[in-house]
Amino acid sequence: MERAVVLMSGGMDSCVTAALAARSREVWALHARYGQRTEEREQRAFSDLCEHFRIPPPRRLVCDLSFYGKIGGSALIDRSIAVPEGGEEARTTPPTYVPFRNALLLSIAVAWAESVGAEKVFIGAMQEDAAGYPDCRREFIASFNDMVRLGTREETDVEIVAPFIDKSKAEVVVEGIELGAPFNLTWACYSSGGPEPCMKCLSCIKRKRAFEEAGFQDPLVSAEGNG
Amino acid sequence: MERAVVLMSGGMDSCVTAALAARSREVWALHARYGQRTEEREQRAFSDLCEHFRIPPPRRLVCDLSFYGKIGGSALIDRSIAVPEGGEEARTTPPTYVPFRNALLLSIAVAWAESVGAEKVFIGAMQEDAAGYPDCRREFIASFNDMVRLGTREETDVEIVAPFIDKSKAEVVVEGIELGAPFNLTWACYSSGGPEPCMKCLSCIKRKRAFEEAGFQDPLVSAEGNG
Repeated sequence: MERAVVLMSGGMDSCVTAALAARSREVWALHARYGQRTEEREQRAFSDLCEHFRIPPPRRLVCDLSFYGKIGGSALIDRSIAVPEGGEEARTTPPTYVPFRNALLLSIAVAWAESVGAEKVFIGAMQEDAAGYPDCRREFIASFNDMVRLGTREETDVEIVAPFIDKSKAEVVVEGIELGAPFNLTWACYSSGGPEPCMKCLSCIKRKRAFEEAGFQDPLVSAEGNG
Repeated sequence: MERAVVLMSGGMDSCVTAALAARSREVWALHARYGQRTEEREQRAFSDLCEHFRIPPPRRLVCDLSFYGKIGGSALIDRSIAVPEGGEEARTTPPTYVPFRNALLLSIAVAWAESVGAEKVFIGAMQEDAAGYPDCRREFIASFNDMVRLGTREETDVEIVAPFIDKSKAEVVVEGIELGAPFNLTWACYSSGGPEPCMKCLSCIKRKRAFEEAGFQDPLVSAEGNG
């Protein structure tokens, strides 16, 4: 069975991405701690998802990128920058953007893929959902793949796959339902470390809207609503 | 004064790169520990070089990438793979190649540059010297720059500069002498953590050859030779 490295933040997008990858490949699961506010809760979601997908510990890699705290520049890691509330789409890059994070995560994923002989790296990035995040754009992924071809061994053949890059978040919910993705195990909130998501940050609002548009109940949110 | 992030391993190439960058820019110095055999000695060289170039602690970033030990795939971090001795140039990628390391280091450097407003990232990579290392090629650096433009904020303008990419190691020695680069503070050996370099690994042999070709005495090696 061919191997694939899957970036798994513990959020809903990477959960569906993992469910998709696991249909046809042996999943090697990569997670990063980078001093984000909800680090502990996200790592628990990652572990729960690995259990669900039966990914044994040797195929899990949790990277400690705590130096990101010194790099700063994002509301997710710098406590002096507020996480914005409300659902306005960003026209410019929002303060929750973490500088060049996807390039860093994808570089680690490619290094691991090259070392263990995985041919694909899956990332759940969505261009539309991530409006204003430059490292979620289709062109960025394509350019990253060009760079990978030039920067790895001759005999290495690793490709970044972003299966949802052109999809809406609601479409990903539908796909996740079809795949039996365990949304109940995921964590998307930018602000709260549990037990309940804040329902105020942009990530919570986008998740709520996606489930509503898809016509499903989010298992993390009680039917009466908790926000 | 414009800012530049400089990748500083503590080796001779990055020492000369820092000396060059420091002529016209405020240097922000980036170093990584990734479980390499000579990690402690390299970090001491980094600290000594920072002192020499008067880079204060807030402008130094030491990243702990110890997860690389779990990624493996290189003689520099995996004790089960031997560091080759002897001076043969590699026709294929040598076992001392660390999977995709430069992509990872450059990604961190770009993230930091984006956060602190640096416009350049300097790396001492040399294509000829690093024959067989795919991530030291001219085309790799060019492709990385394309990816940076697409993956950072609209208002961010960061460029990777590899001033020695087309130079020989002997030419870099000459340039270093002209710039007054403190070669005595550097460490290049792949195998030994000090006090003397092994003089057997490819890195030592290339350094020795470069100083000989340039016609200078390496201050790390006694005139009688210690290898």
